[in-house]
Formats: sequence, C-alpha cells, structure tokens
Amino acid sequence: MTAHENERQRNREEELVATVLAAFDATPDPRTREVVLALVRHLHAFLREVRPTEAEWMRGIEFLTAVGHWSDERRSEFILLSDVLGASMQTITVNNPAAGDATEATVLGPFFNEGAPEIPLGGDIAVGDEHGRPLWVEGTVTDTTGAPVPGARLDVWEADGEGLYDMQHPDGRMSTRGWLRADDEGRYRFWAIMPLNYPVPDDGPVGDLLRASGRTPMRASHLHFLVSAPGHRTLITHIFVKGDPGLPTDAVFGVRESLIKDFVDQDASVATPDGRDLDGRPWTRTRFDIVLAPDQ
Amino acid sequence: MTAHENERQRNREEELVATVLAAFDATPDPRTREVVLALVRHLHAFLREVRPTEAEWMRGIEFLTAVGHWSDERRSEFILLSDVLGASMQTITVNNPAAGDATEATVLGPFFNEGAPEIPLGGDIAVGDEHGRPLWVEGTVTDTTGAPVPGARLDVWEADGEGLYDMQHPDGRMSTRGWLRADDEGRYRFWAIMPLNYPVPDDGPVGDLLRASGRTPMRASHLHFLVSAPGHRTLITHIFVKGDPGLPTDAVFGVRESLIKDFVDQDASVATPDGRDLDGRPWTRTRFDIVLAPDQ
Ligand SMILES: [Fe+2]
Ligand SMILES: [Fe+2]
Repeated sequence: MTAHENERQRNREEELVATVLAAFDATPDPRTREVVLALVRHLHAFLREVRPTEAEWMRGIEFLTAVGHWSDERRSEFILLSDVLGASMQTITVNNPAAGDATEATVLGPFFNEGAPEIPLGGDIAVGDEHGRPLWVEGTVTDTTGAPVPGARLDVWEADGEGLYDMQHPDGRMSTRGWLRADDEGRYRFWAIMPLNYPVPDDGPVGDLLRASGRTPMRASHLHFLVSAPGHRTLITHIFVKGDPGLPTDAVFGVRESLIKDFVDQDASVATPDGRDLDGRPWTRTRFDIVLAPDQ
Repeated sequence: MTAHENERQRNREEELVATVLAAFDATPDPRTREVVLALVRHLHAFLREVRPTEAEWMRGIEFLTAVGHWSDERRSEFILLSDVLGASMQTITVNNPAAGDATEATVLGPFFNEGAPEIPLGGDIAVGDEHGRPLWVEGTVTDTTGAPVPGARLDVWEADGEGLYDMQHPDGRMSTRGWLRADDEGRYRFWAIMPLNYPVPDDGPVGDLLRASGRTPMRASHLHFLVSAPGHRTLITHIFVKGDPGLPTDAVFGVRESLIKDFVDQDASVATPDGRDLDGRPWTRTRFDIVLAPDQ
C-alpha cells in the first residue's frame, strides 16, 4: 500500500464512523444518544483495530445469536457472557464509587431471592444441611465515620453443602439463605456453612468461550451479602476464603483483595461462641466488618 | 468525591480491566487471543466512559437477548444490528483497502443468490417485470493499470418493480437477478429496472433502535454488483442513483460518494442502444465503469 492509499483508506474508515455518528446524533432522548454514540465509537474502534475478515465477523454474529438462543426465563446466557468478560463486575464497580473506607461491592449473581426467611441474630441459615461444615460469621455494620448502623438489614445466601443453590434443586426447596438485623450497636452474627467452589453453567456458547480461552468455569468460594439501611448506599458483596486456590481465576472476576477474609478452622473440642452444641463436629469462624457508604 | 477517592476508584476500574485481560492472555489460538483481548479493552472502555446504571446495563442485556430471539434461519436480526450500526460496512471497508482507483466496495446484503441464471451480454435481468422502468446499464471492467479484464463475471441483482427481492415473495420465484460476462475488451451491458427505495425489516428490536434514534429504515435505491475475475480481488458493491433523497440517510451506511451514478431518464421516443422495442415506455440509462484491485 502506498502512503497515499493508506491515507485514503484511513479517510474512508473515519468518514464512515463520522457518518454513523451523524445518523445517531438526532436521537431525542439525551441519555440514549450518549450511550449509542459511545457504542458506535467504541465498536468502530474495535473493528478498525481488529480488522476482522468477513468470515470472522460472521462467526461473531453467529456466536451472539447462539448466546441469544440459549437465553430464556430461567437462564440468561447474555448475563453470563457479561459476567465472564468482567462487564458485570465493571458495571458494579462504576456504580459503587470509592467512599472513605466503605466496603467494596461485587456481583449480585443469579441466586438472590427476595422471599428468603428472617432469622434471629445468631440464627442459622443452613439448618439441617448435613454436608456443610458449620461456619460462624460475625461482624459490625458501621458508616464511613465509624458510627454503628443499628438495625441494618443483612441478607445472606450461599451454595449448600453439595455446592448447589436451593433454586438449582428441582424440588423447589428454600435453603442456605435468610436475612437478619444488626443489633443496636450495629453488631451481627449468624451460623452458615463453609462456602464451596462451584462452576458457572458452561454447557452453552459462553462455556465454549471459556474453553477456547483456557479459562475455568469455577467461581472462587464465597458467601453473599446484601446490606441495607436507610440513608446508606445498599451494599451487594461477597466474602471470599483466604487461601482458596480458585481466588485468582474466579470466572466472573468478583474477587476484590479487601473481600478476602480469614476463615479460621476450629477443632470440635473448641467451644462455640454462642454455646451451640455441634454434635462433635469441627467448625470454622470468620469475621466481616462492613462499612456502608452514605446514600448519594 | 475527594481526589484520593477518585484515584482509588480509577485504580479499581483499571485493576479490573488488567485482571480480565490477564485471564484471557493464555488463549492458545493467537488470533482468538488478539480478538478477545481487544474486545475486553474496548468493552471496558465503553463501560468506564458511559458508566451505565445496573438497570441500564440490564436493558442492554435484554436488548441483545431480544435480537437473538428474533434471529432464525430466515432472518438474522444480529446482522441487521451490525448493519444499522455501520459495523457491517466498516468490516467491508477494512477488507477492501484502497488500491489505486479500484472501485469501492459496499455491503453484500441478505439477498444475493448463487443460483441466479446466466444472461447474455445485453440481456434483461427483469424480463416480464411490469412495474419497473426499463434501465440500460453499461460500462467496462478494467484493472488498476487501466487494462480491460476480458470475461470478468458480473452478478447483478435488485429489488423488483414492487420494491421486493424475489426471495421476499412467498411463491419461491427467481427474478431481477442474473449473471453475465464482460466481452473480450472488458465491456458489459444489460437491461434491468430502475432501483427503488425499500426498508430493512423494522418490526423487531433493531427497528425499535432506529425509531428511538429518529432514523429511517429505508435504504437508498441501489443496484447490486458482485464482480469477479481470476487474479483480481472480488468486488461486492452497489451503484446508487444521483439525486435520490434517501442517499444521506441510508439505513445501513452503504453509500459511498464514488458509487453514486447519473441515471439519465430518456423519453419513449429515444431509440434504445440495442434497438430494443420498449412498447412506447420511457426508459433510463446509466454507466458504471468498474476497476478491480489486484488479488492480495
Ligand atoms: Fe454465588
Ligand atoms: Fe439491496
């Protein structure tokens, strides 16, 4: 290609971008306009950099079509795609700007249930789970000035002792989830079970992408929290288990260094904090002090 | 936000991008790796710039899911989305780099048919079309040195006199399409009909996007060419009608200034170039001199 041809080629590509931007420039809703103009700029920058062959672009179209076809009311393959590209986590990140020492947010995931039962302070979200190792979780809820947030609501949920969320069982059960309130000094405590690694669904096109990239579908083991109180930004987060070998390869990039906690194993002979009798089973304890950002 | 919080926030967002890039960095196939790393960079740049709320991101997910659900063997809503974002045209552009005065390419569109009939030089691709205005098309096929390309194959196709492609009729007909060969001096000529404006399908989510942006679904009127000859880059292009008011708002951004041609109306009394008797109908003539780039 001569220098002159190069310049003409660049002009053609840039003119096309300008034409497309001009076409969307009259979008009446200002936010829609902002989003679609940015989409056009970034999409064309991607195309001009990658320079896909027409066959490659068609493979991309076919991939997205397959992702759409795998999506139904029960499963969103597009959310999963967003998750494994880190786009869900980036959306969480931009919506939870740093505020003092406020606890970092992470992805909600598909397994939250608004209808979970209330449990008392010190109650057990995993009653009757025979497979899980008992886990004592305690901590405080404070604001960014260090003041306690009395009565803060904590929703907590996790996979059961078989590594499945209740809604992944076909029998309609509700288990290993619940909500409680912090006490007047913002303190909370409850029993759960040690979280396990589990895979995101990898039998669809997103699984193909993970395999093509040599990535694992496994999530680092975690326990979900949704913490809310009037006047504070609602916090959606997880805690992760220090030493879990799956931490660096979490399939959805949910791990934040600040969310990795010590989970300290206890012999069966060690007395539980609340005197509960664990029938001779060993147990584990962890601590998660939560700091809520002010409402915007 | 304090300056310190701003910096921590920027670090969080940048660290996330670095983590996602690192996860894809081990992709074994080098081209897949290149594409997916670029996708991650541009996707996250888009998210960090637009800063979608979680509800906005979910609307985006739902839009893509609907585009997938509208796609089947007969209709690709994802190709249509690619078209109206100019992505198809940008892909064409990067795959047809400027080469001397080689004719510019444009989109193939969904209506090409490999099984179209051969017509003789000077033949009619629109035999029996009662609605269309007869159009005489002539020109030459040369290479970028100006030498004729004898025997070049020209596939030509267009919407019929009702503004529909044959395959949009339910009766399985084949019409207003055909292929011919240039003569020993690279000259060609054939009868067609004046092209009409027609809309891209706008009853799906891509139609919603066009409406939300105040854009028209109409394509500028055009006649399709696919020109091939050994030793030359295959050219997929259109010619457009000078003066068509739809030129600036072509729904798929297929228009290139160099592809807009004079279509010169002729009274019924003007003799046709080949002596054909048009039964007293007025007609139109145009000229399209085609220059093929060398094969890469
Ligand atoms: Fe989870
Ligand atoms: Fe067309």
